[in-house]
Amino acid sequence: MEKKGILIVVSGFSGAGKGTIMKELLKRYDNYALSVSATTRKPRPGEEEGKEYFFKTTDEFEKMIAKDELIEYAKYVDNYYGTPRIYVEEQLKAGRDVILEIEIQGALKVKEKFPDTLLLFVTPPTIPELKKRLVNRGTETMDVIEYRLNRAKEEAKGMDRYDYLIINDELNTCVEEVHRIIQGEHRRSFRNQEFIENMKRELKGE
Amino acid sequence: MEKKGILIVVSGFSGAGKGTIMKELLKRYDNYALSVSATTRKPRPGEEEGKEYFFKTTDEFEKMIAKDELIEYAKYVDNYYGTPRIYVEEQLKAGRDVILEIEIQGALKVKEKFPDTLLLFVTPPTIPELKKRLVNRGTETMDVIEYRLNRAKEEAKGMDRYDYLIINDELNTCVEEVHRIIQGEHRRSFRNQEFIENMKRELKGE
Repeated sequence: MEKKGILIVVSGFSGAGKGTIMKELLKRYDNYALSVSATTRKPRPGEEEGKEYFFKTTDEFEKMIAKDELIEYAKYVDNYYGTPRIYVEEQLKAGRDVILEIEIQGALKVKEKFPDTLLLFVTPPTIPELKKRLVNRGTETMDVIEYRLNRAKEEAKGMDRYDYLIINDELNTCVEEVHRIIQGEHRRSFRNQEFIENMKRELKGE
Repeated sequence: MEKKGILIVVSGFSGAGKGTIMKELLKRYDNYALSVSATTRKPRPGEEEGKEYFFKTTDEFEKMIAKDELIEYAKYVDNYYGTPRIYVEEQLKAGRDVILEIEIQGALKVKEKFPDTLLLFVTPPTIPELKKRLVNRGTETMDVIEYRLNRAKEEAKGMDRYDYLIINDELNTCVEEVHRIIQGEHRRSFRNQEFIENMKRELKGE
């Protein structure tokens, strides 16, 4: 069967808990690799270079763009965010499923470039629950919450472009479900063309 | 989330073990229903009316065709085989995932009529293993085995029309994998249009 990893893009509403789900997935299973984005935004307290992000100057970032060293990039609130190509390609070749946590514009760009990409959209079970989670986070001002809710309206428009909806109701259940969905995807016929061609060849040889 | 059942067509090489997998799936989980086909072929020893098949005369079968009481039907070795519509529709509405075990021509007809149908193709891990299983079954003459191997060549041509390949290596693992794949399919965006539209509506109401 298929040995190459799957490129997975995870998006979702702010506050839907995608970061937590992904961290938990990586903790529990060793067949996943998390892609670390590059950004020009300033590090927040506690963030480490190469862990949350690779922190770049605008000049450095634009050089990466020019050299085609990014799978995708976007500008969001005056800052660049992008996915460095090398790490992703190495991990896929090694058979690991690589997770990119990026927003919808980036997700659709990746899917266009790599049609086999698996797109997952994480959402709380309801909108009231989404708002509750945004507010309870407590690290953001009301302006930011308002901004994010407006953003959510935009993001919702793209939900049906994703392959799966991940309803984050209870964390543990959700993590296991994401794992099962990704592992199931490895059995898709279009991801196993080599196996199929091989079967056909062997049967013809009869 | 989605409450309607999924229509699932299971095909695969003779001897791949699809019957055993499906029986086991129905035994372990109660969200599945197995569609019973109608056929004009004679019952084999031990086969019961309404269990393995609904046994019909050619005349009765052709009346069902005329009344559009079959989702699909095909002729195979001089006998009709078909899927009665009522049972399938009732079970889907009740939220059960309905499994049809039919061959490739029927599978593609069902998919054409109902594009949301999930197509699963069951195969042994290798061709030598397929041949071994056909011979070990012991209930068939060499002519039938030869005929089935020839049929397998034809069937292999359609493998990539199926959504998933189910590799039946070890029964228990395989049954669990089929269950996970089907349950994962319930999270597909296109199967949850109502949920998505509802989210969009609620966000707009902000």
